[in-house]
Amino acid sequence: MKLLEERIRRDGVIKKGNVLKVDSFINHQMDIPLFNEMGKEFKRLFADAKVDKILTIEASGIGIACVVAQYFDCPVVFAKKAQSINLDGEMYTTKIESFTHKRVYDVIVSKKFLHPGDHVLIIDDFLANGCAVNGLIELIENAGAIVEGVGIAVEKGFQIGGKLIRDRGIHLESLAIVESMDDETGTIVFREQ
Amino acid sequence: MKLLEERIRRDGVIKKGNVLKVDSFINHQMDIPLFNEMGKEFKRLFADAKVDKILTIEASGIGIACVVAQYFDCPVVFAKKAQSINLDGEMYTTKIESFTHKRVYDVIVSKKFLHPGDHVLIIDDFLANGCAVNGLIELIENAGAIVEGVGIAVEKGFQIGGKLIRDRGIHLESLAIVESMDDETGTIVFREQ
Repeated sequence: MKLLEERIRRDGVIKKGNVLKVDSFINHQMDIPLFNEMGKEFKRLFADAKVDKILTIEASGIGIACVVAQYFDCPVVFAKKAQSINLDGEMYTTKIESFTHKRVYDVIVSKKFLHPGDHVLIIDDFLANGCAVNGLIELIENAGAIVEGVGIAVEKGFQIGGKLIRDRGIHLESLAIVESMDDETGTIVFREQ
Repeated sequence: MKLLEERIRRDGVIKKGNVLKVDSFINHQMDIPLFNEMGKEFKRLFADAKVDKILTIEASGIGIACVVAQYFDCPVVFAKKAQSINLDGEMYTTKIESFTHKRVYDVIVSKKFLHPGDHVLIIDDFLANGCAVNGLIELIENAGAIVEGVGIAVEKGFQIGGKLIRDRGIHLESLAIVESMDDETGTIVFREQ
């Protein structure tokens, strides 16, 4: 998606250690018209998918997922990190390792909101090693629901997550795939799609 | 907002200890068309407000804020709980006590995204004792920005938060205000607005 690639070139900040900061338009301040363009593009890319529900994970996936859901006419469910006392009843659980925060989270979804046979589209802002997406896939499979696809805003193509998901035959679409980046020159190379 | 009151009556669940669960349509599974109706209503209620930016707090405020922002043509910034290593640079910080999770959070917003003179509308899903909203107001004031108003989906009118904010002269609009509820009979009384 050229619009997103151009935005990353313009407003993304490359830091040492292959860190790409997109906090001015994706995951701290959020550009809603951009999210709408992402929604249109995901709808085009998943035009043939049956989508009953979008699943994302708190916190930075929620904004994109809610705006994108308008193009799929479906509700959004977000997986929660760590147990909340207001989340009673039975729930699906998994563990997700966050490299950003250097810790392991328990991640939960209420059984009320994922049902056997549901067709679920996963939406998230970032894909790197794939821990978050793999956790969401596990929650969906635990529910007996169907992973209809995975839609990601920014994939770090030089990390393993994308390959692992595609190798499983899951329909993964990333709107921008970073092949490489250089914090000294500020250059960034995107995969041709 | 009648639509929201009716939805709370139909799908809200009253639990012991004055807990109102709206997790099937607001804060775990999210009903996006409902959020759009909330956006239209907030735009009507804050028609005269100058809004440069919407501020919310992770996680459950983000979805509503992003959908509502479409009616104000502005970006959304969400305050983050606890420090992330990817959030470098200077930031505004405050502490917020969560009664739901029985703990105190450090809450931060990057100085890049709140500027002196910004007119900011706060959006959140719930208002009870007002700790979260008061923390967001403090962040805005620390930035030298202007609190243009506070828009809440569900206010617990029998708790002190709403009164404290209104007494400060801040323009607060809650789309549904629960006056009282009874977990034994399942009845809920809304404030006339």
